[in-house]
Amino acid sequence: MTTVFNDPTQFAHDMLAGFCRLHADAVQPVSGGCVRATDTPEGKVAVVIGGGSGHYPAFAGWVGPGMADGAVVGNIFASPSAQQVHAVAKSAQRGGGVFLSYGNYAGDVLNFDLAQERLNAEGIPTRTVVVADDVTSASPEERHKRRGTTGDLVVFKIAGAAAEAGYDLDGVVDVAQRANDATYSFAVAFAGCTLPGDAEPLFTVPKGRMAVGMGVHGEPGIGEQDVLPSADLARMLVEKLLDERPEGASRAAVLVNGLGGIKYEEMFVLWNDIAPLLEQAGVEIVAPEVGELITSLDMAGVSLTLFWLDAELEDLWLAPAQTPAFRRGSAIATTRRDPAEIEEAVATTYGPASPQSQASARELVAIGQRITQALHEHEAELGKLDSIAGDGDHGRGMTSGADAALAALGEAVNAGAGVASALAAAGDAWGDRAGGTSGALWGAGLRAAAGALEDSSAVTGAQVRAAVRAGLDHILSYGKAERGDKTMLDALIPFTEALEQDSRDLAQAWPAAAEIATTEADATADLTPRIGRARPLAERSVGHPDPGAISLALVVRTAAG
Amino acid sequence: MTTVFNDPTQFAHDMLAGFCRLHADAVQPVSGGCVRATDTPEGKVAVVIGGGSGHYPAFAGWVGPGMADGAVVGNIFASPSAQQVHAVAKSAQRGGGVFLSYGNYAGDVLNFDLAQERLNAEGIPTRTVVVADDVTSASPEERHKRRGTTGDLVVFKIAGAAAEAGYDLDGVVDVAQRANDATYSFAVAFAGCTLPGDAEPLFTVPKGRMAVGMGVHGEPGIGEQDVLPSADLARMLVEKLLDERPEGASRAAVLVNGLGGIKYEEMFVLWNDIAPLLEQAGVEIVAPEVGELITSLDMAGVSLTLFWLDAELEDLWLAPAQTPAFRRGSAIATTRRDPAEIEEAVATTYGPASPQSQASARELVAIGQRITQALHEHEAELGKLDSIAGDGDHGRGMTSGADAALAALGEAVNAGAGVASALAAAGDAWGDRAGGTSGALWGAGLRAAAGALEDSSAVTGAQVRAAVRAGLDHILSYGKAERGDKTMLDALIPFTEALEQDSRDLAQAWPAAAEIATTEADATADLTPRIGRARPLAERSVGHPDPGAISLALVVRTAAG
Repeated sequence: MTTVFNDPTQFAHDMLAGFCRLHADAVQPVSGGCVRATDTPEGKVAVVIGGGSGHYPAFAGWVGPGMADGAVVGNIFASPSAQQVHAVAKSAQRGGGVFLSYGNYAGDVLNFDLAQERLNAEGIPTRTVVVADDVTSASPEERHKRRGTTGDLVVFKIAGAAAEAGYDLDGVVDVAQRANDATYSFAVAFAGCTLPGDAEPLFTVPKGRMAVGMGVHGEPGIGEQDVLPSADLARMLVEKLLDERPEGASRAAVLVNGLGGIKYEEMFVLWNDIAPLLEQAGVEIVAPEVGELITSLDMAGVSLTLFWLDAELEDLWLAPAQTPAFRRGSAIATTRRDPAEIEEAVATTYGPASPQSQASARELVAIGQRITQALHEHEAELGKLDSIAGDGDHGRGMTSGADAALAALGEAVNAGAGVASALAAAGDAWGDRAGGTSGALWGAGLRAAAGALEDSSAVTGAQVRAAVRAGLDHILSYGKAERGDKTMLDALIPFTEALEQDSRDLAQAWPAAAEIATTEADATADLTPRIGRARPLAERSVGHPDPGAISLALVVRTAAG
Repeated sequence: MTTVFNDPTQFAHDMLAGFCRLHADAVQPVSGGCVRATDTPEGKVAVVIGGGSGHYPAFAGWVGPGMADGAVVGNIFASPSAQQVHAVAKSAQRGGGVFLSYGNYAGDVLNFDLAQERLNAEGIPTRTVVVADDVTSASPEERHKRRGTTGDLVVFKIAGAAAEAGYDLDGVVDVAQRANDATYSFAVAFAGCTLPGDAEPLFTVPKGRMAVGMGVHGEPGIGEQDVLPSADLARMLVEKLLDERPEGASRAAVLVNGLGGIKYEEMFVLWNDIAPLLEQAGVEIVAPEVGELITSLDMAGVSLTLFWLDAELEDLWLAPAQTPAFRRGSAIATTRRDPAEIEEAVATTYGPASPQSQASARELVAIGQRITQALHEHEAELGKLDSIAGDGDHGRGMTSGADAALAALGEAVNAGAGVASALAAAGDAWGDRAGGTSGALWGAGLRAAAGALEDSSAVTGAQVRAAVRAGLDHILSYGKAERGDKTMLDALIPFTEALEQDSRDLAQAWPAAAEIATTEADATADLTPRIGRARPLAERSVGHPDPGAISLALVVRTAAG
């Protein structure tokens, strides 16, 4: 949907006005579009780009030093008039001639050609390169018939950099034409777009399907198929473009363009699949661009562009640019930090440990194995219990946490860690992987408990009691809950207290306390939760025990062996 | 929809991997997120930001000089773990302490607090400012309970600039807290978002309605109402935020944030309405930001943020920054061009004209009035004819062109223009406003026709014949159509030839040629169009005359008086 607008017939006008108002330091509105608000030297070739609206950042977003001198802004998905092109060119030109460039669509060709004829007749030397990069719209033999898509950005950037560097008009035309000839794009679309004020989309793609080779205004593509996973989509896009890889070409600027309705996160996922495929094919990727480069309102789709570089084109591609939507170069000088130094900062190391403490750590592994096994056995049951008033992920969270903790424990023991360090590592792993508030509290509790142990000695019964207390206290300090709130505390508090009050050997005291924890956990069935996001569903949980209390009781019961 | 992904459970991981791969010169992946790949001085405060994924450019997009030193990247819409926060902070810190900042959500508060405690315990001084800017989520009296939204960008930018400038940890906390206290945001949402792998959206907003005050994860707002036009939406957003305008505040950074499902064009339209309202209220807008700043996957919505500045905060807001998604400052030095010079470039001026030519121009106005009136009378009929095989806009295009031409003609005559200049101005206006190929060709034809007239003398019959021929030839050179293709040429060619072959006075020859044009236009009913986008519908037009030929015949018939 296009949702935010006033009079839909004035959308392009209002959009341009807002854009120029926002970027008043960079662009000035003129009849037909906008030009740079910043000065350019007399005699510089003026690069004038343009086309219909609805494709931001194309075209107004690219006006500025290092790129365009002016952008002609037509109505939504409609060519600007010849009069607009003429007016913008006249406003932008500085005596060095005008270079026109735009995507290859019949209406644009007609209007830009009419303007070019008039400019030349007025004594302003004007030449054009029409962008034609969409491989699905015509065969390699008829590549001048191809539509212009993300190749626009390539050609405009090269022409803009050349003009900024002082190339004359013929020189700009030459590199721009070479850039166009070296640029290949391929797009897929997942959903259509809706024009401002329209209730229905301009075109549709069936849900779960994708149109292959569809144009930026919904022009027909070469087929339709099921949506592919990112890895397969990447392969399809890369293989199609490598089919037309020029002889000997190895270095390429690579562009992934989002058409509007897909998010940057999705483009990054796709890039993570595309880049290795290109590297495997021997392509050296130079200054890639991934983002919304040429959009089609809210159309969902994505395209890949390869721009094969020679030395001159690479220099121009890398030259600085400063426009509202495309920037290259930095105002801040930087040097690279040693990556190894960064990695070292969080490298896991364990302090020295006594053999006695190492032995206690090994015992902890055995306990951890029992707990992990028990949690897996009860995962479904815990999930079911949690789904009554929560989101049903407690069983999964507990097993994820325990699995990670056990792995970390094993690693620590193998590295010779003492019991305190090993338990801390286990707590960290649990907290990192279990997810949610309960996962964070389990991790924090285990880490606090580790603080009561020593790497220099075997674990004592008093230390275990102190460890459990430390864990409980830490959880209490963060958890914002208290006993009776139907949380894990309803088992943990009575367990801790029973353990502290029972002066027998741990071998007797722990199982007894665990029995109490179990009884108390079962008794939470009578409670109504006070806090947390499950509150609206609180009454549904009456009659069912709290999954957090149940799982805590299960852990301490299992730990006893 | 979220469409491009592999294993949905790995989406956040794959996204971060792709992002770090793309921006390898700027960021380095570390356990828990990413940090700057560039060097920072020993003793600098490390600014560590973070939160759940799905909000790009928040948070990884803001790592770099002038902003964050590291970003902690949680799962989609989920807090990162305390272990992630700890690891990123350890990787980023350079001995000057760690400044943590993130949006105010319970899970983030828990995990960042746990990490802060651990960092402090390890001897790394760590302090936090929690961002709380969403005015609808708590009252002014409880503003610490507000959710963090676009205020994230404000607080991170201020803290980042302060740390870069060498502020110590307490100094960074002080300005960041002041920035947070001076920041107010208000959001509306038009549609929900869909998590990767989910078939249904996380939440929905009824079509045509908007949720007022909804949070970035779909948290409940304060109401729901019909979607407003941009101007009314702007007023609603501005008024709400000005309600909490601090005493004496006048300068403000202003941010318009798109949540994902609305386009930059829509945000520019909204900005065009927001900026004047703020200016009317005496707000001086400083370096505004309009764009996708903190998104929620594909959620459609928009928010306004006011950040009230004092001198120190303004300096920090304007300081350079160089991150993948937020940049301030330019690698290219620029100076402003004189705006008047740009405006002069296309100012309309007319050359000197003889009284005789001016008289002919006045006659042209009378003819133009008749033509315009006739086209308005036939607009519906032409539209209906066009809708058979085209998009039905021919009547509207012709009246728009004629109206604009008549206005330009009147302006030219009032300015003392001769007939050639006046007709050229009329042609330009027609071509600029009529739209489509036929509008462009009408404009071009009229301008070419004007070339056969003189500003120094009255129009002669021979000149009129030459003008019509010049117009036809120009259209033929661009139109790519020929007689028999069912276009306006099927009337214009016989009209031109009849006029040339009829040696009588124009007063007799023109009406006779116009009759022939009319007959030939009617005869296009027997033709099938060969070209143009109407081709698939070609057969539907058989039996109906071509609207372009019919309107041309109407114009020349009416011109005769």
